[in-house]
Amino acid sequence: MKISLQYSGNYSKLLSSEIHHKIQTIHHLMATRSGTGADYLGWVDWPHSIHLESLREIQETADKICEQSNVLIVIGIGGSYIGSKAMLEALSTNFESSHPVEIIFAGHLVNGSYLKRLMHYLDSKEVTVNVVSKSGTTTEPAIAFHFLRNYMENRYGEEASSRIIVTTDENEGTLRSLAIEKGYKRFVIPHNIGGRYSVLTAVGLLPLAVAGYDIHQLINGAKSAAEEYSKLDLEKNPAIQYAVIRKHLYDSGYPVEILSTFESQLKYVQEWWKQLFAESEGKAGKGIFPTSVLYSTDLHSLGQYIQDGQRIVFETCLLIEKVQEDLTFVETKQNMDQLNYLNEVSLHEFNHICYKAASLAHLQGGVPQIAITIEQIDEEHLGHLFYFFMMACAYSAYLLDINPFDQPGVEEYKMNIFKFLKKPAYSYNRQLQTK
Amino acid sequence: MKISLQYSGNYSKLLSSEIHHKIQTIHHLMATRSGTGADYLGWVDWPHSIHLESLREIQETADKICEQSNVLIVIGIGGSYIGSKAMLEALSTNFESSHPVEIIFAGHLVNGSYLKRLMHYLDSKEVTVNVVSKSGTTTEPAIAFHFLRNYMENRYGEEASSRIIVTTDENEGTLRSLAIEKGYKRFVIPHNIGGRYSVLTAVGLLPLAVAGYDIHQLINGAKSAAEEYSKLDLEKNPAIQYAVIRKHLYDSGYPVEILSTFESQLKYVQEWWKQLFAESEGKAGKGIFPTSVLYSTDLHSLGQYIQDGQRIVFETCLLIEKVQEDLTFVETKQNMDQLNYLNEVSLHEFNHICYKAASLAHLQGGVPQIAITIEQIDEEHLGHLFYFFMMACAYSAYLLDINPFDQPGVEEYKMNIFKFLKKPAYSYNRQLQTK
Repeated sequence: MKISLQYSGNYSKLLSSEIHHKIQTIHHLMATRSGTGADYLGWVDWPHSIHLESLREIQETADKICEQSNVLIVIGIGGSYIGSKAMLEALSTNFESSHPVEIIFAGHLVNGSYLKRLMHYLDSKEVTVNVVSKSGTTTEPAIAFHFLRNYMENRYGEEASSRIIVTTDENEGTLRSLAIEKGYKRFVIPHNIGGRYSVLTAVGLLPLAVAGYDIHQLINGAKSAAEEYSKLDLEKNPAIQYAVIRKHLYDSGYPVEILSTFESQLKYVQEWWKQLFAESEGKAGKGIFPTSVLYSTDLHSLGQYIQDGQRIVFETCLLIEKVQEDLTFVETKQNMDQLNYLNEVSLHEFNHICYKAASLAHLQGGVPQIAITIEQIDEEHLGHLFYFFMMACAYSAYLLDINPFDQPGVEEYKMNIFKFLKKPAYSYNRQLQTK
Repeated sequence: MKISLQYSGNYSKLLSSEIHHKIQTIHHLMATRSGTGADYLGWVDWPHSIHLESLREIQETADKICEQSNVLIVIGIGGSYIGSKAMLEALSTNFESSHPVEIIFAGHLVNGSYLKRLMHYLDSKEVTVNVVSKSGTTTEPAIAFHFLRNYMENRYGEEASSRIIVTTDENEGTLRSLAIEKGYKRFVIPHNIGGRYSVLTAVGLLPLAVAGYDIHQLINGAKSAAEEYSKLDLEKNPAIQYAVIRKHLYDSGYPVEILSTFESQLKYVQEWWKQLFAESEGKAGKGIFPTSVLYSTDLHSLGQYIQDGQRIVFETCLLIEKVQEDLTFVETKQNMDQLNYLNEVSLHEFNHICYKAASLAHLQGGVPQIAITIEQIDEEHLGHLFYFFMMACAYSAYLLDINPFDQPGVEEYKMNIFKFLKKPAYSYNRQLQTK
């Protein structure tokens, strides 16, 4: 299993001795855990270092949840939300009769109506809550947990403690103290793995297991990726290739990258990718702005801009070779809808032709093209793909001389909130209300 | 009812005599229907020119659909999809017991598994299909309709004709001929209203009415907007203000606009906005790249880039003054989650504080800020908002000397598809399959 990467430009020409040297240096810094942010390189060996025992514990907890509940509420934001959401959406099937356990997210938005109606909806269900927060102090999920903990305690009394599971840092945070005091089951996010690199830890694994998917296959896929993408091979390692091409395009005046796909179930994989790259690279006035489109629908929307607008974008298409289910076009006698030219074309083939057509048009319109292809969408390939992007992202950020593992900008608005709410609360809110 | 617009810069300073002159010229060209693309200015007077009789006909058809069906399939892409989707999502409530008639979209994506499972799902429902296509020839919805028409004919026999409704151009297109031959009920998209300006026609009105929403209020809101935003007033007309500010920021080196909101139900209003501006402005190597974020979740994702990344973005926040349902924080005795500082703050107030905090932080980080505020989300305010954006978009494109009403770039990939599939189909597909 391997990701294949195509680029519309001449890749070999990008491999200057300067790039060779830089990539070698980054590879060395990563291998020796000595670069900026090296305290957060825990994800690099994670697929190999996670114990079978840990996987078993997650699976057992998932099985217990499935026995006692038909809804799992996952409370989280950022890296504690989007990776799980991405996997569940990617593996889901349209119009399927619902899973034994329905998974509902909360805490990624602050919305009174949503929470109120969620709690009403839960009244007729059996519920477990998994609250996920690395720091244990982020306000948005803390607010959701505040209301949902209250709901669970009112509804289940002492039993609530056995229906609340906390995934948080090993050593610190409000959530950790609360979990210990209340006796909640705890899973650990390793201190050396940052939120947006944590999808392969209990953060993503527990919801995935509860939904009935194979967490061992996910880790297996990541393992094979760890082997492939740790190689120092500028010619053949697609994680390095992707980083080198991105850096070249960024330097050539393309500050916006569009991740496109024809697979609607990859929509939240795109969102996960956006967080990964935006938070890892978008610092010190630098970085590629990551955005996404879903085809065909966005060919009739942003497609016009991509084709003809200001020449600031390049495009990376995430392609899937095989789909598990398809329809094939059969010509009709009367050809009233004039579609007989599609005879014997499957819809997946149509999308592939559509991709070739759009990619060629966009390239001719001045939009450099990258294609990242995986064979199919399943647990193993997702694990592989996540790891690929994390490795490519680390290289990309280091190539910009950026620490890929901090997020200083996210703190700014948090500090303002704190400042605003430290004012005598009532008078401030009054002001808001009378506006 | 009016939209209020705030800008972090000094708006008066932007009103040079050149801008005054340009806006006057555009206003004159729009009023006299004499600018580039003037053949497609039908949307300008539409809220006033649509007949009560037409609204009554749409409502009657909707009532009939509600009697005979519990699922309405809306087949469309681009402007024939995203406006309806935006309205239905904006007005929907979380976890609500489903509407009498469920509305399902198709044709915006080409996906065999989706269509197959949709048809299986329909087996236990009573179904009406509304196929929407201005040109009547766009391939993606045509493919979906091909399979769904076949499904309807197999299932309902001759009755299928009374369960298929076509919304298309008055005078031309394959779909129109088919509808006439088969005797389908037809609604007209006026020839002088382009797809992305068609949300207030039968395109958006029929699905909205079927879902039980008030189409008269939608048109009323658009009417008041038509009155407000047709005024030649650079100081007070927010549609002109928005266009002038956007042009200034574009000229000042900000080629990317992020439309942010805290209201998750406006997610597809953001998508509608992206199509409107991307297709109207993104031409001739010009235009602002429109993209969107949803807060709080994206404050823990793209937020880092917005705060600290390359200084190419400005931000427009879509704010709602009042929500219909909310929760208010009540302090706890033990304060175990350390959130008592939120005592008596409602979650909507929290979001507003969060907005102030993020907007201030982003501004200080070098991201110019625009705020567009509407009072609440309902049919009337949505109609008003859609019209506001359409008017602002026309001014914006004209300020760039761009025809706001064509989309030449969308044709490029279509021509390639046609070219590829004109090759002896079988051999070409064989090549694809063996890759």
